[in-house]
Amino acid sequence: MAKELKEVINKEENYSQWYNNLVIKAGLAENSAVRGCMVIKPYGYAIWEKMQAALDKMFKDTGHVNAYFPLFIPKSFFSKEASHVDGFAKECAVVTHYRLKNDPDGNGVIVDDDARLEEELIVRPTSETIIWNTYKNWIQSYRDLPILCNQWANVVRWEMRTRLFLRTAEFLWQEGHTAHATKEEALEETRKMIGVYADFAENWMGVPVIIGRKSDSERFAGAEDTLTIEALMQDGKALQSGTSHFLGQNFAKAFDVQFANKEGKLDYVWATSWGVSTRLMGALIMAHSDNNGLVLPPKLAPIQVVLIPIYKGEKELAEVTAKLKDIAENLKKLGISVKIDDRDNVRSGFKFAEYELKGVPIRIVMGPRDLHNGTVEIARRDTLTKESVSQEGLPERILNLLDEIQANIFEKALKFREEMTTKVDTYEEFKEVLENKGGFILAHWDGTPETEERIKNETKATIRCIPLDAPEEDGKCIISGKPSKRRVLFAKSY
Amino acid sequence: MAKELKEVINKEENYSQWYNNLVIKAGLAENSAVRGCMVIKPYGYAIWEKMQAALDKMFKDTGHVNAYFPLFIPKSFFSKEASHVDGFAKECAVVTHYRLKNDPDGNGVIVDDDARLEEELIVRPTSETIIWNTYKNWIQSYRDLPILCNQWANVVRWEMRTRLFLRTAEFLWQEGHTAHATKEEALEETRKMIGVYADFAENWMGVPVIIGRKSDSERFAGAEDTLTIEALMQDGKALQSGTSHFLGQNFAKAFDVQFANKEGKLDYVWATSWGVSTRLMGALIMAHSDNNGLVLPPKLAPIQVVLIPIYKGEKELAEVTAKLKDIAENLKKLGISVKIDDRDNVRSGFKFAEYELKGVPIRIVMGPRDLHNGTVEIARRDTLTKESVSQEGLPERILNLLDEIQANIFEKALKFREEMTTKVDTYEEFKEVLENKGGFILAHWDGTPETEERIKNETKATIRCIPLDAPEEDGKCIISGKPSKRRVLFAKSY
Repeated sequence: MAKELKEVINKEENYSQWYNNLVIKAGLAENSAVRGCMVIKPYGYAIWEKMQAALDKMFKDTGHVNAYFPLFIPKSFFSKEASHVDGFAKECAVVTHYRLKNDPDGNGVIVDDDARLEEELIVRPTSETIIWNTYKNWIQSYRDLPILCNQWANVVRWEMRTRLFLRTAEFLWQEGHTAHATKEEALEETRKMIGVYADFAENWMGVPVIIGRKSDSERFAGAEDTLTIEALMQDGKALQSGTSHFLGQNFAKAFDVQFANKEGKLDYVWATSWGVSTRLMGALIMAHSDNNGLVLPPKLAPIQVVLIPIYKGEKELAEVTAKLKDIAENLKKLGISVKIDDRDNVRSGFKFAEYELKGVPIRIVMGPRDLHNGTVEIARRDTLTKESVSQEGLPERILNLLDEIQANIFEKALKFREEMTTKVDTYEEFKEVLENKGGFILAHWDGTPETEERIKNETKATIRCIPLDAPEEDGKCIISGKPSKRRVLFAKSY
Repeated sequence: MAKELKEVINKEENYSQWYNNLVIKAGLAENSAVRGCMVIKPYGYAIWEKMQAALDKMFKDTGHVNAYFPLFIPKSFFSKEASHVDGFAKECAVVTHYRLKNDPDGNGVIVDDDARLEEELIVRPTSETIIWNTYKNWIQSYRDLPILCNQWANVVRWEMRTRLFLRTAEFLWQEGHTAHATKEEALEETRKMIGVYADFAENWMGVPVIIGRKSDSERFAGAEDTLTIEALMQDGKALQSGTSHFLGQNFAKAFDVQFANKEGKLDYVWATSWGVSTRLMGALIMAHSDNNGLVLPPKLAPIQVVLIPIYKGEKELAEVTAKLKDIAENLKKLGISVKIDDRDNVRSGFKFAEYELKGVPIRIVMGPRDLHNGTVEIARRDTLTKESVSQEGLPERILNLLDEIQANIFEKALKFREEMTTKVDTYEEFKEVLENKGGFILAHWDGTPETEERIKNETKATIRCIPLDAPEEDGKCIISGKPSKRRVLFAKSY
């Protein structure tokens, strides 16, 4: 397996192929019989569950509650918010019938034409419309506000070109939908939630992100403002990893959601929505992994420590395994998730390669000599280094090492991003960097969609965001030479 | 509100109306704009989340892992397992197109006829077919077995007559799908999981259940054996609350899933599937609630203890609330979920009624006199009793009381079921009990579908199950008079 792996996984040769191989060989996901829909396999789903648990707690800690809204949306709902339907809802799965029947010719089942729906139903691509149609009945007065709901759900967007986790027809996500009495409160919520996403990306996934505002042309359909977190992958392309939208009163107006304010006057409700998806799995995989396989940050690793015995014969196996079980119990007491792999039908080299492939942060190996000497061998997945250490104080050492690995993975990604972020002042330089180096490019832009469009058409790079913390700086647009007050972030992207 | 509630909720007058009102007024769920699909509101979803967490832990403790399979199933898959398609898959949501377009007449969006799918996709009503099509690629040898996967998902069955939680077009559930090398192992898994469900129903939901086998006619389409847990609601009707199916080699044969056994010979894989759904919410609500509202078992209550200050003026409010906060902190330290309701715009009587409606197990009330005396008033939701107790040792007292309430709710439901379970030996008696008393009826049956069908047609009662622990007992079928070896369980059901 170790050999087989090396043969097919080499990110310098073909990054895209490396990614796809890695997702499949590490047992994270695979394509299904349904075009564009993936199967998330147990190991991949275990990572997603850890992400969900962490995010869910962060949402609850910031006052949100979960709810569940219908999978289907009546077709007519999409037309109610004009820019939403224009920008969005075209590539959707459409339910037209509600019954199958036996084929009279005996060839299995066919759609029953007598069971046609009066109005077609769309499988939700996002739920603003159905949720705001629901909120209409929940909101009468300012006392009913704010509403701070989140939903964990599956959504469907009929993508033509799909890639596991990064772009699939069906994907899993959470979508927050909040309703507020004032514009200020909704704006604050929009900012708060992009902050939660940035916190999660950096402190759980170990992925540094740039927080910024989308340009007009990249904004969510129906939003007045879209905030985003942008991460950089190892091939120098950006990945949009989460968005938070200030929706103004657009959906409230479309669905006629008004409330009586403290003065007793009717006003439309202010809205936000925000979401992250299984796309984060793609970001996690691409940000840290190497040619040996996944590199998982300890906080999201389903198995944090794997313990492997080295032995000759059953007696040694029993002795070593007994001691490993002791160690495992002590690790568990500290909240560390462990696995002992005492399979006797595969070689230990195979096991080492397998857990490297799966990105287990720490490997503890013990042989008869270790047993005698009171030592173990510890191997780190992130640095691929090994050392022999005393069994004394091992649990605390492992706990510290997990923190160290978590921090190192982030630092490494941050250093990479810094190296791969280039300030340019001319279009020539822009194109040169994009072609030969890639990564994030900070350049001045005149703020017009025409310039943005030209750059996109000529270079395939887009404005990822206007960073919120960009310092004011006088400059000239690299295309038009018109004055600009701050640099914006360009990159090719997923 | 207290008055308004009493006016509309009276289960003796109209049980069905009482149930629906309760679900809506307690903020658990409501109907949506999409026929048959419900919105699960935050309070209802919070209960469901507690159910999910407990079940998920039980599944993992028994060796299962989670995964995720596609929402859509190609139509042709349904025809592959003959009895599955016959018994099942007709009332389904059918996706025929994948794109909308702007109506050239300017009336919003219409379905794009150029975007018709080559093969229609069915929104999963259950996932045996797509999962077994996937397992085919996961299984080559006995070393790949067992596969013990569970999925938390939404499913759609196009029900014509729907009721919140009990029968909805879309519902949430979990579906376990396991693959085994031997028949014995699959049978053991089938039994183990119905045991897990019974454990959950009784020890978490406080709902006593009868474990039994479904008759041939009530078996899951595609199964060789279906085990069920049957609960009794307060109106004397049964609710099937969870099922576990032994699928034999039916799906393995339909999808050609073979494995090399230890002897190197090819054999078909043995299968089980098992599931519980948001229907459990219906069971939970109907089993315990009264005319004041919900009665929730403490283990599933989102708020276990509500603390309410009684006061005149702001100074008293501040003093009492400060003390309540102390108490709340001490309760939280014991893992108890608490809420302090110090709203000053509603009367305390309104609050009492609201938390009774929401089924909060314990209410702690404190006024200035309590503050002075070092006491609080404790009210139990299950018995509607109150007592004044010392603040000394309060957290431990509350912890014990929560256990006592959990036990009492179960005992009460068990006593009710025992009173409402009747052994009958003649068809006359059967009909008389069914009409005047309801509940579970234990009667002898000759084992034929003809007898079962006649009883169902004439009385609307069905065989809920053949209880696994039914003692052997010689008797005669109440219809045919033919010999029978054990009584089976009849009831009208949801």
